[in-house]
Amino acid sequence: MQPIIDPWGSQLPEEYNKLITDFHLEQFDAKLFPAPNRLMRRGIVFSGIGQSIIADAIRHRKPFYVLSGIMPTGDKIHFGNKQVVENIAYFQQHGADAFILVADLEAAATREVSLEQAKKRALEFHIPAWIALGLDPKKTTVYFQSENYEVMKSTAMFSRKVTMSQFNALYGDVNPAKIVSALTQVADILYPQFKKRRPGIIPVGIDQLPHILLSRDIVNRMKSEKFVAPSAIFHKYTPSLDGSLKMSKSKPESSIDLPEDPKIACKKIKRALSGGRDTLEEHRKLGAEIERDMPFELLKQHLIEDDAELAEIYKDYKSGKLTSGEIKEIACEKITEFMHNLEKGIKEARSKISELKFVK
Amino acid sequence: MQPIIDPWGSQLPEEYNKLITDFHLEQFDAKLFPAPNRLMRRGIVFSGIGQSIIADAIRHRKPFYVLSGIMPTGDKIHFGNKQVVENIAYFQQHGADAFILVADLEAAATREVSLEQAKKRALEFHIPAWIALGLDPKKTTVYFQSENYEVMKSTAMFSRKVTMSQFNALYGDVNPAKIVSALTQVADILYPQFKKRRPGIIPVGIDQLPHILLSRDIVNRMKSEKFVAPSAIFHKYTPSLDGSLKMSKSKPESSIDLPEDPKIACKKIKRALSGGRDTLEEHRKLGAEIERDMPFELLKQHLIEDDAELAEIYKDYKSGKLTSGEIKEIACEKITEFMHNLEKGIKEARSKISELKFVK
Repeated sequence: MQPIIDPWGSQLPEEYNKLITDFHLEQFDAKLFPAPNRLMRRGIVFSGIGQSIIADAIRHRKPFYVLSGIMPTGDKIHFGNKQVVENIAYFQQHGADAFILVADLEAAATREVSLEQAKKRALEFHIPAWIALGLDPKKTTVYFQSENYEVMKSTAMFSRKVTMSQFNALYGDVNPAKIVSALTQVADILYPQFKKRRPGIIPVGIDQLPHILLSRDIVNRMKSEKFVAPSAIFHKYTPSLDGSLKMSKSKPESSIDLPEDPKIACKKIKRALSGGRDTLEEHRKLGAEIERDMPFELLKQHLIEDDAELAEIYKDYKSGKLTSGEIKEIACEKITEFMHNLEKGIKEARSKISELKFVK
Repeated sequence: MQPIIDPWGSQLPEEYNKLITDFHLEQFDAKLFPAPNRLMRRGIVFSGIGQSIIADAIRHRKPFYVLSGIMPTGDKIHFGNKQVVENIAYFQQHGADAFILVADLEAAATREVSLEQAKKRALEFHIPAWIALGLDPKKTTVYFQSENYEVMKSTAMFSRKVTMSQFNALYGDVNPAKIVSALTQVADILYPQFKKRRPGIIPVGIDQLPHILLSRDIVNRMKSEKFVAPSAIFHKYTPSLDGSLKMSKSKPESSIDLPEDPKIACKKIKRALSGGRDTLEEHRKLGAEIERDMPFELLKQHLIEDDAELAEIYKDYKSGKLTSGEIKEIACEKITEFMHNLEKGIKEARSKISELKFVK
């Protein structure tokens, strides 16, 4: 396959390329989609499956849906959620009906949170945060897993269409809880088609790939039901500030929550792995190693919308004109503004909850 | 362990003894239970687990429940269902609240029947047949799996309390459908405790043993939830008329449906494996081999209620005074009367459906 082209410096980790090869995924093709968003333009959405059927639906204004889920634990989200929401917003702007499921049952089953707490958190924080990040509440249908009986009822039927070997091939070692959870995800993914068959796109981190493949397998084994195999696009993780693959709560000093106190976020950025050279002299001469610069990666993935502005910074940093300290300064300014807007946006979005369509 | 004592001649197949040994089951103890029913008195209920907690509830008039399920496929039931219903009726008479679940979801997932058809069949045939066989509708709560969201919701939680190795130890090779189905059965078995923890007894054929053990394992792994481990009693199969372990639809000539045209049932009985000797002379001299006599087994398990009457026949057959032809004649008369009563009972029971308590 062709190498993934990332015009903005960071390399596609080897893990991603291996997945693409192993599972015969498509390279993401931004040319298929009108006015691709920042994540699509910059190679952060790097792979997909069934892209053309969605591109076709957009082009011919045919009905399709975009779907994702909220895990209502905690009172923070992360950059991965932001990527999902931005992609949902993109497809909403291009004609998709959005479906958001709140995984309250899964939250209650896995963690120390009751169904009531989960519901409260979803309504008071998670959904408002998603609206603040771009979700259009007027084009969104929401359900709580614990209340959607159509989804629950269908898992038994889907369970009959998959073997243990398929599960092991997709998920490695599984246990009963994983099996039930995966089948529920399949039911969630296909739920918008229960009443009307139509294409759907699931924007996810690449770690969700098995659920997509399982859903497509099951659809293929139920040909008489005429479900449309769900499409997906996969985005790269926002890397940890120490340069490792993915921000993680287990390393809070290298991970930025949404929202987070901008002062704390800036402190973390100042200590982040950078592409600056050891001495200023060397830096001016050789320029930055942008591929390993985490503050630049944050600017690229999340904090600078305008391609020209990013290109300018890229050029100046690459040439050594801008120092790593200055890049961190820019990232800090941008993230401060972003966090202020986000906090404000969440507050405002609480009054928009009623614009969502809740179903059971 | 002590050998199972069956005072009426038939041997406990080796398969049963192996199960009892392998899974450390209790021998059924009829002395624990007041006025044991025919199946209990005659060694047909041959094993149990957690019997004393139920005996204690009966003795001290404490709340407990009895539960079973209806698989609403087809328009016939079989002698195994009759055994279950008779045991449910016994526990109802001794203070239990009965719960009957209609496995419409499972029926729809496994066989060519829609949810609507399944519901119709349950209401028009299966439930009336159970009432005709002794179920007390006034003490019975019924639900349809497809409508009981509390059961569906809880399977995810239960799935987290069991490993693949446990599944394999109990069920052998499993697949996702079996796992989902087994977890649903656990949820069904514990459902009557969702609102109020209490002992429960599940009267089942020995083939259902894994579900009972899985339920008990899961209860033990959720100590903080304080579920009471469900009890069970296990009955022997009604053997096939050719002498093999279990009547089966795959051998219709050796299997009697409920209801069935008495003439056809009699024809099958006449061809059944008998304990009569090769010649009349030999028979008069040696007496019958009652252990292998299927018409006698039918009389014992299902067709003669009065122990004295059965004892008389047993004695006369054992001594050779009664011939195998005469035993078949008796069985034919009794089954004809039974089938007439059953047909009449089903018709009458249709008007009693409203006495059941339906829940969702």
